[in-house]
Amino acid sequence: MATTRLITDAEAEADPVVKAVFDDIRTTRESDFINNIWRALATDPAGLERTWNSVKSLMAVPGALDAKTREMIYIAVSVANGCSYCVHSHTAAARARGMSDEEHGELMQVIGLAAQTNHLVTALQVPVDPEFEVGFQPT
Amino acid sequence: MATTRLITDAEAEADPVVKAVFDDIRTTRESDFINNIWRALATDPAGLERTWNSVKSLMAVPGALDAKTREMIYIAVSVANGCSYCVHSHTAAARARGMSDEEHGELMQVIGLAAQTNHLVTALQVPVDPEFEVGFQPT
Amino acid sequence: MATTRLITDAEAEADPVVKAVFDDIRTTRESDFINNIWRALATDPAGLERTWNSVKSLMAVPGALDAKTREMIYIAVSVANGCSYCVHSHTAAARARGMSDEEHGELMQVIGLAAQTNHLVTALQVPVDPEFEVGFQPT
Amino acid sequence: MATTRLITDAEAEADPVVKAVFDDIRTTRESDFINNIWRALATDPAGLERTWNSVKSLMAVPGALDAKTREMIYIAVSVANGCSYCVHSHTAAARARGMSDEEHGELMQVIGLAAQTNHLVTALQVPVDPEFEVGFQPT
Amino acid sequence: MATTRLITDAEAEADPVVKAVFDDIRTTRESDFINNIWRALATDPAGLERTWNSVKSLMAVPGALDAKTREMIYIAVSVANGCSYCVHSHTAAARARGMSDEEHGELMQVIGLAAQTNHLVTALQVPVDPEFEVGFQPT
Amino acid sequence: MATTRLITDAEAEADPVVKAVFDDIRTTRESDFINNIWRALATDPAGLERTWNSVKSLMAVPGALDAKTREMIYIAVSVANGCSYCVHSHTAAARARGMSDEEHGELMQVIGLAAQTNHLVTALQVPVDPEFEVGFQPT
Repeated sequence: MATTRLITDAEAEADPVVKAVFDDIRTTRESDFINNIWRALATDPAGLERTWNSVKSLMAVPGALDAKTREMIYIAVSVANGCSYCVHSHTAAARARGMSDEEHGELMQVIGLAAQTNHLVTALQVPVDPEFEVGFQPT
Repeated sequence: MATTRLITDAEAEADPVVKAVFDDIRTTRESDFINNIWRALATDPAGLERTWNSVKSLMAVPGALDAKTREMIYIAVSVANGCSYCVHSHTAAARARGMSDEEHGELMQVIGLAAQTNHLVTALQVPVDPEFEVGFQPT
Repeated sequence: MATTRLITDAEAEADPVVKAVFDDIRTTRESDFINNIWRALATDPAGLERTWNSVKSLMAVPGALDAKTREMIYIAVSVANGCSYCVHSHTAAARARGMSDEEHGELMQVIGLAAQTNHLVTALQVPVDPEFEVGFQPT
Repeated sequence: MATTRLITDAEAEADPVVKAVFDDIRTTRESDFINNIWRALATDPAGLERTWNSVKSLMAVPGALDAKTREMIYIAVSVANGCSYCVHSHTAAARARGMSDEEHGELMQVIGLAAQTNHLVTALQVPVDPEFEVGFQPT
Repeated sequence: MATTRLITDAEAEADPVVKAVFDDIRTTRESDFINNIWRALATDPAGLERTWNSVKSLMAVPGALDAKTREMIYIAVSVANGCSYCVHSHTAAARARGMSDEEHGELMQVIGLAAQTNHLVTALQVPVDPEFEVGFQPT
Repeated sequence: MATTRLITDAEAEADPVVKAVFDDIRTTRESDFINNIWRALATDPAGLERTWNSVKSLMAVPGALDAKTREMIYIAVSVANGCSYCVHSHTAAARARGMSDEEHGELMQVIGLAAQTNHLVTALQVPVDPEFEVGFQPT
């Protein structure tokens, strides 16, 4: 259970800020579905608006990376941060943006391998090679 | 400083397992450069061989994801796990595989946004929407 | 389900160390309620006593920070460490010590922002400005 | 060393977005000092602007929590996320906003205690008591 | 619910790679039980084979550390990474390899103490003593 | 550089609490060496005393686990929490308590493997098998 209530559509109608954000989520995503993170954030209308604006401005506009790649990066961060809800929601989002089963399987393996070598490097406290530094000039 | 010694090329020559792995790294990467993680792992030849085989079998062969995307996913996991060496080495690798400054900038923003919403969701303990579950059937 | 049993009040009565700790929790908190973390720890009476003494000596005595602020800091750490139980229990505790809905909403936003910039800084591997070091003297 | 260059004041002058953000940082903080995170982010002007706007809108305006408390929460999250730069910069900021040595010492102890019990709870996989759930009604 | 399906024994029979791995798990462990992680990984047969080979080559062969100690180390990492499933499965495995209740209780306390001092050290940003470096020579 | 000063022996002499703890560290460890974490904590004498008492009561007395195993568990947690100082200090401590190069190499591999499967399990959101629960009764 959440540490806040989840705001219903009826309650959202009663708060102009929440109503505006919920309307914008539905318009932007072309779907009537409002998932639970927005219903929990809506207990703090200013925080809801602030968070939605951040997500919308980055994930809902075209950029250098395609939408599927962004969602796979989102999954990778969410896994390493141990966010169960986020892993579920962004795996669903990546699939909706075309991630195939083969891509999902490979994503799993890259995440697992990265975690393995992250821990090995931290355990060994390996110093950074100068070759990896920005502006490195071989002598 | 590392918690183990870093094996030199001269020392690597003296151990057949280490020599074979170092040779394979150079052949696979078409470069004479052996970075420090391999030199630290080489204090345990069996661990070196095991780790290199894992990395080679996943990162050095074609698959469903292109090499640049894999490196960006690797960066995302390494950031969330706080591995400074890994962030340096895989940022260099992603650039070598064609990541542009625009893609790097956007990668940074997606990683930051994911971390923000990961923490919000964990703080609010939001329950997973059934719509995100595999095999969900709307009623 | 826990990885240990949860000790009942009847079982606690039968072990003098567990009984003494449970009695002290009830006296200190002025409540009959013993939450599950203590019931799980009680499978190891020495560990229970040790842990309760640590918590009591820090959280149950007046200090430089007021009780509400301590609980909000506790929430922040628990979120970043991904401890679902702890987020629940310390959100309840912070509310019991006077945290308002406005303060909770703002706490959520500060936690989210900190996580975002933590990840950006780690991704960019930004070197510490000398100005932030203890004893910095501008030249 | 950072994984990007650090933008100098001369370079900032040449980009109108970067210049505007650097000017706003200086005005908002009433200081000429621009710390390294902004110089690293400035390699991506849109990302710089986006990040600064997030930080400014939350940390530079009055709210339910005072500025010192916000900085202590920021420290707590930064410690748990292992961000060395952030720990340095926000410890300096908290001191600038009045955090005493006694408060800093107690903050350290609360962070340490929270981490200890976070790990104990995760190790024991303790189920959440219904009493901690929002809307709990004793029977 | 998992983000992939869980492969049944009937489905496993139909894929030669999955069948071979499931057979090898049963033979190696001398048990008919296949736990859920393998059923989830089996949606990607190559990933399943790769992961099982890694686990088998390290955990199922004699080495410098006994099997019980390896499992306790596995628990420690899994707790710090917040993996609920892994904490459950490796606590069961450690008990099956002889971990006593006293050892489990002490393991809990060491994990908790390590987390506490990890966070204190990170909060204080303590520089590494030269005495801890490999090859340190007192002057 | 630390976020606090490091207390010198001369300063320690001037504070009875700090002096008593430093004396006890030297007596307990049979060594004149006081490492930096204690010098940083000593800026808050009560926090120093509290932390040292926790460490001493657990790590310096015999128990169910031998001292070398405790240090290896400490390393595992410290790696997963990304504490560079702690990895250095506890690797040195484990070696001082007899950890061989072979044991260190295998510890590295177990830590890496655990991290890999931790991330895979979190990415796949695998539900806990009932067989892993305490008190499981096969039907």
